[in-house]
Parts: sequence; structure tokens; C-alpha cells
Amino acid sequence: MLGRSRGAASRRRRLPLVPLLLCALPAIAVASDGHAGLGGTLLALTIILLAAKLGADVAQRLGQPAVLGELLGGVLVGNLGLFGIEALGFIGTDPIVDALANLGVIVLLFEVGLESTVGQMAKVGVSATVVAVLGVIAPFILGYGVGAVLLPDHSMYVHLFLGATLTATSVGITARVLRDIGQSQSKEARVILGAAVIDDVLGLVALAAVSGIIASADQGLAPELGPIAVIVGKAVLFLGGSVGLGVLLAPILYRNAARLRGGGVLLGISLAFCFALSWLAGVFGLAPIVGAFAAGLILEGAHYKPFVDKGEHDLEELIHPVSHFLAPVFFVVMGFRVDLSTFAHVEVLGLALALTAAAVVGKQVCMLGVFDKSIRKLPVGIGMIPRGEVGLIFANIGLGLTVAGERIVDDGTFTAVVIMVILTTLLTPPALTWSFRRPAQGHTP
Amino acid sequence: MLGRSRGAASRRRRLPLVPLLLCALPAIAVASDGHAGLGGTLLALTIILLAAKLGADVAQRLGQPAVLGELLGGVLVGNLGLFGIEALGFIGTDPIVDALANLGVIVLLFEVGLESTVGQMAKVGVSATVVAVLGVIAPFILGYGVGAVLLPDHSMYVHLFLGATLTATSVGITARVLRDIGQSQSKEARVILGAAVIDDVLGLVALAAVSGIIASADQGLAPELGPIAVIVGKAVLFLGGSVGLGVLLAPILYRNAARLRGGGVLLGISLAFCFALSWLAGVFGLAPIVGAFAAGLILEGAHYKPFVDKGEHDLEELIHPVSHFLAPVFFVVMGFRVDLSTFAHVEVLGLALALTAAAVVGKQVCMLGVFDKSIRKLPVGIGMIPRGEVGLIFANIGLGLTVAGERIVDDGTFTAVVIMVILTTLLTPPALTWSFRRPAQGHTP
Repeated sequence: MLGRSRGAASRRRRLPLVPLLLCALPAIAVASDGHAGLGGTLLALTIILLAAKLGADVAQRLGQPAVLGELLGGVLVGNLGLFGIEALGFIGTDPIVDALANLGVIVLLFEVGLESTVGQMAKVGVSATVVAVLGVIAPFILGYGVGAVLLPDHSMYVHLFLGATLTATSVGITARVLRDIGQSQSKEARVILGAAVIDDVLGLVALAAVSGIIASADQGLAPELGPIAVIVGKAVLFLGGSVGLGVLLAPILYRNAARLRGGGVLLGISLAFCFALSWLAGVFGLAPIVGAFAAGLILEGAHYKPFVDKGEHDLEELIHPVSHFLAPVFFVVMGFRVDLSTFAHVEVLGLALALTAAAVVGKQVCMLGVFDKSIRKLPVGIGMIPRGEVGLIFANIGLGLTVAGERIVDDGTFTAVVIMVILTTLLTPPALTWSFRRPAQGHTP
Repeated sequence: MLGRSRGAASRRRRLPLVPLLLCALPAIAVASDGHAGLGGTLLALTIILLAAKLGADVAQRLGQPAVLGELLGGVLVGNLGLFGIEALGFIGTDPIVDALANLGVIVLLFEVGLESTVGQMAKVGVSATVVAVLGVIAPFILGYGVGAVLLPDHSMYVHLFLGATLTATSVGITARVLRDIGQSQSKEARVILGAAVIDDVLGLVALAAVSGIIASADQGLAPELGPIAVIVGKAVLFLGGSVGLGVLLAPILYRNAARLRGGGVLLGISLAFCFALSWLAGVFGLAPIVGAFAAGLILEGAHYKPFVDKGEHDLEELIHPVSHFLAPVFFVVMGFRVDLSTFAHVEVLGLALALTAAAVVGKQVCMLGVFDKSIRKLPVGIGMIPRGEVGLIFANIGLGLTVAGERIVDDGTFTAVVIMVILTTLLTPPALTWSFRRPAQGHTP
């Protein structure tokens, strides 16, 4: 747009330098020797950031959220191997890049959590709980059904496991789309994000229950309820404890921290708070992003007002650059790991598409949990669609489980689950954007 | 200070929560099982950030730059083992924390580089070059002398190696102190930083030369000059090439990038530029921070003006939060790795102190290279004092070199080098602060 108002002389100098650089870097990479250590990480970050910004640009020009572009940018770079360019494969295996990606989604969920308060979340608590419960039960039943119909030769345990694989929502994508389209403070967003937190707990329970049943069945025993109760207890203890104690202690923490001299105290203390709760969530068996989101919910503007009064930037403004740096790493790496050659396994495509349909349709039942007439139902159902790491972790565990010598998840089933994760991930950004933009139908906005 | 004007009721609520948290976290850490993977990194980052902010507070109350507090905070946490608290040792060995520390010093040098332009650096180019050359020759001669006097039984090659170990300045500390005390745009800062870049090249040459002489001597051959010429050639090629091409291409890069849609383009493209040059510096055999600093020098406000015109924040403002998050990780981890028990090796303390004296005095000769009367000499001499990774890398290489069966660096000598690195690192922040604050003596500021 800017370019159109300029002269031809200016237009002639409009070299597509960024794409050129993106092409030149791998060439230098091949010329240099290996990518061990810091050098590999630096090169990977360069390529990831360029792919993210170029992808986001294309997505936004097409009216899509930036995150879709980052994902597809990652898919493109990650599948250059299909065109014989193997030099960039190290990006997907660099442990530092992986850690930065994880920090990125943690900071993102913290940032999204900052936009709501515990009180605002409590208001949508009933809806969120019902949405989460429905969003676990329905995909579980549908996944079981897909297994029973398409894999009739396999045992009931395989069908149970497929059901469990479909339960857990991966909220990173949805949180980012909500932010990209300016809806992260909407009531719909709160229902989705609240449900995703509860969903994470329920997903753990589903995994523990199904794994427990299978392990017991393999030994010819009846399943035990004890371990499941422990998991539920720990999760509830963390959520209740962290939010309860956090609301009490955060004001004291920030009142003391405001007395500290030196630059960057607000950002440093807030990130420490976020990382501490993320770590604690992991200790209690939950996903770290649940802790990061809880940390964001707990913190409110009132806590860090003393810093703003001293002339410091607002916390949101300080977190933005950190998340603008790290969050794209997560999404590009997610895209990078999409192995397009998976789709060549035509023999599992049927199962994959059926699982994807079960995953999508199953979460639409969530809409029944939205009682508040002012909340649009469709965005809630669509926002719960993405499956991610948790589904893959489930499938991975299934690869190692057997009942009476039968593997619960064989390679074909695993590939189908991977394709389901890819499709739900790529489907969500455009679908969620569309669901928010379509004309309101009788709801009060 | 703020607290004093408040009532007793407020004072009573002034719980020292941050220190309490710092104490509580290791206890939880011990209670939880292990620190593998992301959880360990999150806990480490929490402790590092808290230690950094508390240390910086104490340092600033004592009139010292924040970085000294971060270093000492790291020393304290890293040596809790001396008091029987072993639970935090994982922080020093976590590869992700190590990588974040390295990214931290890279972003810091990029940020410091942004505050100067290539033109400004060129103006102090002659001074910086003479300062760098003197700052390599003098410590080399003094180090050789210390070896000859205190280790008379060892061969000349050992003395040569000790000399080489003292040559390379570690500019991270100095750059950070300069920023902490608001002097990073001073002429003194430019001379020091310019000299440090050249110094990095000369240090590589010194290492290659001495290692080459020793390797040849071990085989009874005369040393070859070819490999050294290659090293010098590569370094000059990188510096000349990156700055030359960078100045030409950066405007085109940014003009194109300004047309990209989506958030965070300015930060993303700039970090990609910084990481690309850091990576390239490594490919050419230089330290990545040299590339990051060059990237900062190349970029000027004019390049990213289109972004600011669109209403985005200034690049410096966007980089600050990223460096406020990551740079303290570097300094706390540097402090963490200071093993205070090293000082118990009384038998090497004499050598260590003599080496430290040679390291400090040797760099004061740098002052002779400052011809411009408006530049204070003392800060330049003191700013060049810190030795860091490069000295340790040299010593480490020396551990593996032998001439006629004699190890070039034995364990005692290595420990002495480590102590020299510790002392020069901890000495620089207070000394540099003092040198800038003392009354001007006949110089025009």
C-alpha cells in the first residue's frame, strides 16, 4: 500500500531482499561446517524469525491471523527436504530452539492471562467447566466410535485409547489467534481459555484412566481408581493453591519489589513469577502453560501500579517484545515439524480424516455448555478444536502399550493421529477468524 | 526510601517476600523430583531473575552498577554448596540456561552497538586500533614475565602461553557497566568497544600463533605463518564485509520490511539481522558478540524510521525488554560459575595474584593509545581489564598441549588463570564506575 504512492524510481529499488536473504542463508549454511552449538541456534533463529515475518505478512494480506502465516512459514521451511534441500533439518532438532519455542508459548499464555483477571474468569467458570467436560466426553465417544468402525479387528482398548487421544485441547494456537484478531478480552475468549485449563486436567485424567485400564487388562486385573484420584487431587491442589495464594501474595510481592532499585525490575519479577508458576504446574503434573496462564490471571494492574507511577512502562508493554520474539519461534517450529510426507500414507488417510472429523465435531458439542446468551457459541466450539502436543504425547505412550501382545497404537494409527493434529492446527486460525467475523445472529455483543 | 514516608502500619506489612521466595524455591526444588527438561530451566530462570534483581538492588544502594550485583548474586547462589546446599547446582549445567545466557550477551552487545554508528566508530578508529594493539602486547609481555619469574622450572613455551592467555578483553562486563552508568554513548565507550572488537581478532591471532609455535616445537619444526594469515584474513574479511555490505543493504532490507504487515516486524527483522551477523562472525572464527555489535553499529535510526512513522516503538525501546530479560541471565550465570573454593588453593594464589596484576597493569598501557585530549584515559584503561571466556578457552586449550612431554598448562596454572578471570571480572564494575565519576582533570568532557 505504502509503495503504491511512490515513484517508479522507488519501485525499481524494491528488491525482495528478505526472501533473497532467506534463500541465501541456507546456501551459506551448507558452505559452513555443521550447526553444533550456539552457531546453529543463531542461524535457526534467523531463519525462524524471517519465515515468521514473511508468513505473517502473507497471512494478513489474505485476511488471516498472523499465526497461520507463521505456521505455514514453518511448514514450508520444514519441508524443503521434499525439494531436495536438506540443509535446514537441524532447526527441528536443535534443543535450544525447542526450549525457546516452549518459553515462547509460556510467555504468550502469561501475556494472554494478563488480559483477564481471576474475577472475570470466575464469572464464566460454570460455562467453562461445562464446556470443558462436554469437550472431553464428546470427542472421547466419537473417537471410540471411529476406532470401532474403522478398526473392527482391534480390541476395545485400542478404541478407548483413540478416544482419549482426541480429548485434550491445545490452547496455544487459539490463544494466539484470539490475540491476533483482537478478541483476547472477549467473553468467548475467557470461556475458551478457562475451559482449556480444566480440559488440561481432564485430559490428564483421561490418559491416566485409559492407560491404567490397559495396563490392568494386560495383567488380567481390574483397573484401580487410586492413581487417578491422586492426579485429580494434585491438579486441583495446584490450581486452587496457586490462584488462592497468588491473589494473596502477589500484592505483597509487588509492593516489596517496587522498592528495589535498578532497571527492569517489573519485567524481571513478573517473568520470575510466570516461570515459577509454570514450573510448579509441571511439578504438579500439569502443562507449564497452565501455570503461566494462572500467573497472568493473578497479576492485575493494581499490583504493579507503583512501577507505573515511577514512570516505568506498563507490564503488558514490557512483555510484548519478549513474546513477539519468542512466540513466533513456537509457531514456526510447530509448522516446521509438520511432515508433509505423512500425507503420502494413503492407507491411513481414511482413519486420519475420520479422526479429524471426530475431533472437530466432538468439540462443537462444547457449544451446548454456553448458557450466557451474550456469548457467541460458534467461536467457543471452534476455539476448542486444535489438538497439539498432548494428543501426540498420548499417541506416543500408546506406541509403548500392549494388551495380550497386541500393540495399542501401531505405526499407521500413530500417523493418523499426527495428521489429525496437523489438520486441526491449520484449520483453527481461519475458522476461528471467520466465526468471530460472521454477522451476529441474535446475540448481544 | 519510598518506605520511609509511609506509616508504621505499612512498614509492618513490609515482609521481605522476595528473599523468602528465593529461600522457599530450593526447598520445593528438593521436594520435587529432578530438574530434567523444561521444568529445570523454568526453575533456574526464576532463581536467576530473582537473584539478579535482588543483587542489582543491593549494588545500586551501594552506588555500584547493577551488573556487579547480578554477578555477586550469581556467586552467592552458585556457592551455596559451600554451606551444604547442593540443590541448585543444576543451574550451572543446564544447557538451555547456558544458551539463554549467550543469547543475552549477544542481545546486549547488539543494543550497545545500536547506540553508536559506523561513522562514530570510524572517528575513534585510530585510537581504538592503537589501544587494542597496546592492550595485547603489554599484557602478553607481562604475562610472559610473570611466568618466567614464578615458574622458572617450566619451559619458555609455558611462559609464552601465559602471556597469550592475558591478551583478550571480555567486553560483555564493560559494555554492561557503561550502559548501567549511562556512559555507553561516550567517546570513551566507543574507544573501548572498538578496541575490544579489534582485540578479539588479535586474541585469535595470539592464540593461533602461540599454539602453532608450541605444536611445531613439539614436533621439532619451525612454526608456520600460513594458518595465522588465514585467521587474520578471515576476521578482516568478516569485519570489512559485514560492515561494508551491511551499510549498503540495511536500508534496502528495512525499506522492504516496513511493507510487511503483522505485529513485531521491526523487532523480528532486527533480531534476525543481529543473529545472522552473530552466526556469521562465528563461521569466520570470531566471537558471536563481535557480529552482534557490528549489527548494532550498522543499524541506524534512519533505517527503521518508516516503522516509527507507522506508530511503532523505537527499536531501542523494543530491544530493552528482551535484553532486560536475557542479559541478567548471562551475568548471574557468570557469577554462578565462580567457584569460591578455587581460592582455597593457596599454593597457586601467588601466581594468580601476579597474573591478575599483569592483566590489570598490562591494559593500563592502553591509555597511551588515547590521543584525543577530550577522551578520559583512565576509563579506557580500566574498561579493557575484564578477561572472560576467551582467557578460559585459551587455558583450556593449554591443558591439552604438550612440548616434549611437558604439559603447557598444568592444573595449578589453570586454577590461577580461573582466579585471574574472576578477579578482573569483579574488579571492573566498581573500578570503571569510579573512573568515570572522579573529578575531571583537565579534560574537556
